[in-house]
Amino acid sequence: MKQASLVIIGDEILSGRTEDKNLAYLARWLVKLGISLSEVRVVLDDEDAIISAVNSLRKKYDYVFTTGGIGPTHDDITTECIAKVFGVEAKIDDGALEKMESYFEGKELTEPLLKMLRIPEGGELIYSPVTKAPGYKIDNVFVMAGIPKIMQGMLEGMYDYLESGDVVNSRSHEILVGESFFAEELANIQHQFSNVSVGSYPFSRDGVYGATIVLRSSNDSALDSCEKLVLNLINKF
Amino acid sequence: MKQASLVIIGDEILSGRTEDKNLAYLARWLVKLGISLSEVRVVLDDEDAIISAVNSLRKKYDYVFTTGGIGPTHDDITTECIAKVFGVEAKIDDGALEKMESYFEGKELTEPLLKMLRIPEGGELIYSPVTKAPGYKIDNVFVMAGIPKIMQGMLEGMYDYLESGDVVNSRSHEILVGESFFAEELANIQHQFSNVSVGSYPFSRDGVYGATIVLRSSNDSALDSCEKLVLNLINKF
Repeated sequence: MKQASLVIIGDEILSGRTEDKNLAYLARWLVKLGISLSEVRVVLDDEDAIISAVNSLRKKYDYVFTTGGIGPTHDDITTECIAKVFGVEAKIDDGALEKMESYFEGKELTEPLLKMLRIPEGGELIYSPVTKAPGYKIDNVFVMAGIPKIMQGMLEGMYDYLESGDVVNSRSHEILVGESFFAEELANIQHQFSNVSVGSYPFSRDGVYGATIVLRSSNDSALDSCEKLVLNLINKF
Repeated sequence: MKQASLVIIGDEILSGRTEDKNLAYLARWLVKLGISLSEVRVVLDDEDAIISAVNSLRKKYDYVFTTGGIGPTHDDITTECIAKVFGVEAKIDDGALEKMESYFEGKELTEPLLKMLRIPEGGELIYSPVTKAPGYKIDNVFVMAGIPKIMQGMLEGMYDYLESGDVVNSRSHEILVGESFFAEELANIQHQFSNVSVGSYPFSRDGVYGATIVLRSSNDSALDSCEKLVLNLINKF
């Protein structure tokens, strides 16, 4: 199974001003392709932080996605950083320039607009239907915008570059009792199925403790058998 | 200014099943104390991943917070990992045991309940008002539950261990035009104020592009002067 990682770039996430929506979206999108999202890092708009996160993850995982920092303002520094990661220059891409010029019907493009058309050499452009400024893929790194709608559009353009795996299906069931009451039996169920991942995700709702038990596997018959045992367990309470 | 980091532990976040709420909460809580949240990592319920994230962040930052993985089920492995990080044993804490026994009025505690009372040697217990199972602090690492309400309660108990800094204030203003139209002028404003951080966070709302310009500084008079220039810029559009 291919493993992916994500670098979320932006001071606004780390100050709590903006709640990130891209992690959960990317995670669910990858699950459907049978690719596992294995690690996420959130870093400041800081050159060293971005370069170090991308470098460490691109060696460790099959794919690295990044979100944020490819806009026109001074705090958008992702592309410079990615260029440094690969030891190349970021240059205005001719195809991207043509597209933007035709959109602005020949008006002269300002420096901030041109900035968004700089792509690290060797990068392949990936457009979102909702913007004329592209994201790109370079080696195993996929660079996307931070605005969720734009990011989601770019992601569709990245589909062809990714190798899908066996799709992992899941079954979820709620149990309305604290985890400590069923933890031992659930551990026994996990021990019986090495090819099913059995997770327990506790919640409290209106003062009632409970948990969602989630089973995940690419083997449907194992999933069925495991689910039966979990339903028996739930029915005891 | 003290720098903090966060390790979010849990398969459910990386599968997209659960949307994390703790990052934004912690970020805003730290801002009020004048502590910067500088990096976040989200990792699987996997021993190597947890140990490596905590080890790398505790050397790099003043404080490391963790959320998740301290419950009673088999997939809760945070405490074992933290014990390994510090090369100590995790043992049932006498004070925590007493508290739990009195809550259950002398009934025998099951193994899953006891598991939650194991604390790495040297750890100091930190309770949340909403649970009898504690979080803890060991060295510069603060271990909290993943359920937001419990996490928030434990965080209050960690207040006394943290060194506050100068509080960073912020001013936010929306500008209803695409970033490329004001990026150069905004960069000029940033250049004039080395002690103010000027950020631009683009959005699209009902098809209209705009951005929130956020100014942050611990120097209020610099913030005032910088804000005036930003308001002038906004009024041009």
